Amino acid sequence: MPSEPLGVALVGCGTVGAGVARVLLEHADRLSRRAGRPIVLRRVVVRDPAKPRPVELPPGVLTTDIRDARADPAVDVVVELIGGTTAARRVVLEALEAGKHVVTANKALLAGHGAELFDRARRADRAVCFEAAVAGGVPIIRALGESLAANQVTAIQGILNGTCNFILSSMADRGVSYPDALAEAQRLGYAEADPTLDVDGSDAAHKLAVLAQIAFGVAARPDQIERRGIAGLDPMDIRFAAELGYTIKLLAEAWTGEMRNAGLGIRNEDSGSLSAIPHSEIRIPQFRTVALHVAPVLLRRTALLAQVRGAYNAVALHGDVVGETLYQGPGAGMLPTASSVVADLIDLAVGRAQRTFAAARLWSGEGSGFVVEPSERVRSRFYLRLLVADRPGVLADITRILADEGISVSGVVQHEAPEGDGAGPVPLVVVTHVAETGRFRAAVGRMDALPAVAAPAVFYPMGD
Amino acid sequence: MPSEPLGVALVGCGTVGAGVARVLLEHADRLSRRAGRPIVLRRVVVRDPAKPRPVELPPGVLTTDIRDARADPAVDVVVELIGGTTAARRVVLEALEAGKHVVTANKALLAGHGAELFDRARRADRAVCFEAAVAGGVPIIRALGESLAANQVTAIQGILNGTCNFILSSMADRGVSYPDALAEAQRLGYAEADPTLDVDGSDAAHKLAVLAQIAFGVAARPDQIERRGIAGLDPMDIRFAAELGYTIKLLAEAWTGEMRNAGLGIRNEDSGSLSAIPHSEIRIPQFRTVALHVAPVLLRRTALLAQVRGAYNAVALHGDVVGETLYQGPGAGMLPTASSVVADLIDLAVGRAQRTFAAARLWSGEGSGFVVEPSERVRSRFYLRLLVADRPGVLADITRILADEGISVSGVVQHEAPEGDGAGPVPLVVVTHVAETGRFRAAVGRMDALPAVAAPAVFYPMGD
Repeated sequence: MPSEPLGVALVGCGTVGAGVARVLLEHADRLSRRAGRPIVLRRVVVRDPAKPRPVELPPGVLTTDIRDARADPAVDVVVELIGGTTAARRVVLEALEAGKHVVTANKALLAGHGAELFDRARRADRAVCFEAAVAGGVPIIRALGESLAANQVTAIQGILNGTCNFILSSMADRGVSYPDALAEAQRLGYAEADPTLDVDGSDAAHKLAVLAQIAFGVAARPDQIERRGIAGLDPMDIRFAAELGYTIKLLAEAWTGEMRNAGLGIRNEDSGSLSAIPHSEIRIPQFRTVALHVAPVLLRRTALLAQVRGAYNAVALHGDVVGETLYQGPGAGMLPTASSVVADLIDLAVGRAQRTFAAARLWSGEGSGFVVEPSERVRSRFYLRLLVADRPGVLADITRILADEGISVSGVVQHEAPEGDGAGPVPLVVVTHVAETGRFRAAVGRMDALPAVAAPAVFYPMGD
Repeated sequence: MPSEPLGVALVGCGTVGAGVARVLLEHADRLSRRAGRPIVLRRVVVRDPAKPRPVELPPGVLTTDIRDARADPAVDVVVELIGGTTAARRVVLEALEAGKHVVTANKALLAGHGAELFDRARRADRAVCFEAAVAGGVPIIRALGESLAANQVTAIQGILNGTCNFILSSMADRGVSYPDALAEAQRLGYAEADPTLDVDGSDAAHKLAVLAQIAFGVAARPDQIERRGIAGLDPMDIRFAAELGYTIKLLAEAWTGEMRNAGLGIRNEDSGSLSAIPHSEIRIPQFRTVALHVAPVLLRRTALLAQVRGAYNAVALHGDVVGETLYQGPGAGMLPTASSVVADLIDLAVGRAQRTFAAARLWSGEGSGFVVEPSERVRSRFYLRLLVADRPGVLADITRILADEGISVSGVVQHEAPEGDGAGPVPLVVVTHVAETGRFRAAVGRMDALPAVAAPAVFYPMGD
């Protein structure tokens, strides 16, 4: 292990950058002890040096010229924290060409340009580290790539967007409306002024694309990931879900093989892992398709992920050797994200990260042979809520359409209409057994065309 | 990275050994891809080669002579899976001297002989890996040592014994007695025929000693860890805990500095991590004592760890940079434990483990300067349940004793005695604010001497 310092340049010094700088400056002794060598902040590249920042930088560190970082032979690692994909891509490519390792928290960059960046890094014999890109302070990248390396992961369920989870928790726990919950999230600093990329599921889809590359070797473009957000979620559906024993969470999910045939989702079983599993029960899944989506999903209230409240992130992973494991923590924020960025810097200083990067061969095209399953083929249980005229025959029409598509009903909820209110449409909730998404959607299309159906059907997949 | 195979010898082929052999044999392609080189099972050393095993070994692999493993130059790693400490210690020392790396799942060995083994490994320039030693399939060793390396961990709360958690879940969820829950656990294979080391907290204390070494650099001998088990836990206390909104879990806990002054426990807060934390709130704790114990603890029913049911293990970690993170999964069993053992083998094949081992300098005496806090100094809230005569003045006597010791009461529960049953003693529950354990115990001693107190007081610490 070399004993000379590992030199670091930060590109971008917003919230996360300031957090990284603080940890490097305030805990230098600790980091040096853990890494076996000093980790030294050499440069911080910013656009506006006059802007106030929650960190005091040593003299000579702040610069507006990124070439100061690239050209400095004492800089070993460039930490890209500017976000976006255009300038960030250039920063990363030029850093690699200048012989620097790269640490990034930029999921959109990885999801969109992973193949190009990782190829360039391999050719430059440098590493790209990105623990902070998914789930902030939760070490999910190491869990998937290193701790569970003996496993083929067969399912991933993730709460990967803290903003959405905060809004959904507020709606479920306190009965507030979507606009009010969003406004509160913005007031508390949990949501951006423009929250589009969070609430439409894009941010979670970028993160899922990164996880799917590690777990399945698939290079899913974010636009290949079926995606529904939480904007416009009706409190009525949260109430019906609760009545059925479920909680609605925005989940990023990937699942393969037999996990699919049981309806999506990882089961939170009480046991089954402590005792020796009989010989005959060890199955080696041979399924080669993986379903990916981001959607509001009804999770049983007893499921572990259903308990995750507020701005936390959590990921449940099912591996074919280990069974189910779960990881939870703060999904964003100055210091939690800095914790993951600095862990990557320590790994580079120790020399672990270089070996991990070389061995993993991510975005190299050498996948595990999985392909993304077309969304209409994906099998799931469904929650379906209609607004229907309160008259005879409607339920018969709806259940007939489902039967025509080969979909069985596992439950129906229709409350008696209040007295004297008989004329308006009433909500009707149908819960199905496992069905193919394409056939379910065809059924919904036919229902929406019924004269008795007063508004487009609302439906969500159901997990376990 | 070398491309020649990594040769493995298993010493012991019980449940976990058979699982490791199966994964190595059945998933050889996968492991070779992940490690960048083949991982080959060269030897399996057993006492009785005729014993039936749930794995079919290739010819020539099985042997009864450990020297076959040590002397084989094609063996790079010895995996110690025989358990116990006497023979296991010899196996590990001799393997290191023969120039082999060591992987072990043996927490008792590490807790009792860590300093000797790690010193020998460092002198032999070999690595000792032990992900499987704590919490089975949960990658808590990597989380503490690598993923959270930027942090000083300030608190650990762990459900580290699946047998105890299964028994407590059965008692709480189905109201069964301790002996019945234990018998069921034995019937289902979750508890050994002799469950002493599980139910008396020894197993959890060994695991806590290992975690405390990584997190705090303290080499706590298991007998230094204050330890109470679950044998004899009264269903009455589980019911009172539930009435107060708590669940009783056997927890292995370590906490330091200001975490202590708020009563033990990691708070399951809804938020606080997503937004930028203001500059002034970043504190660098300078506390240098760490409290360690294993005990049944009352956890708020909404706490994440309170939701962990059955034979699962889970660990909540609080780090001064990241905040709270949580890790959960199967705590034992053939395949979950094999998942962790094989992850260590992959790390050795990739070359990561050697660097991690050299950098971490565990059990080297170079701690972070923490010392174990004497148990009587440890501060906590307490649940206290007495059986008292139902007559005037008893509550006054008890609260007076607490007041004398400077302990404030935060709640009292005494139910009206059933009609016609007034003569017998009645349960009285007192919940305290944060108090020093020594003073609380002194108060309990005085209460036990009161004529109105019919049986020794029962008390448990309370977490958050």
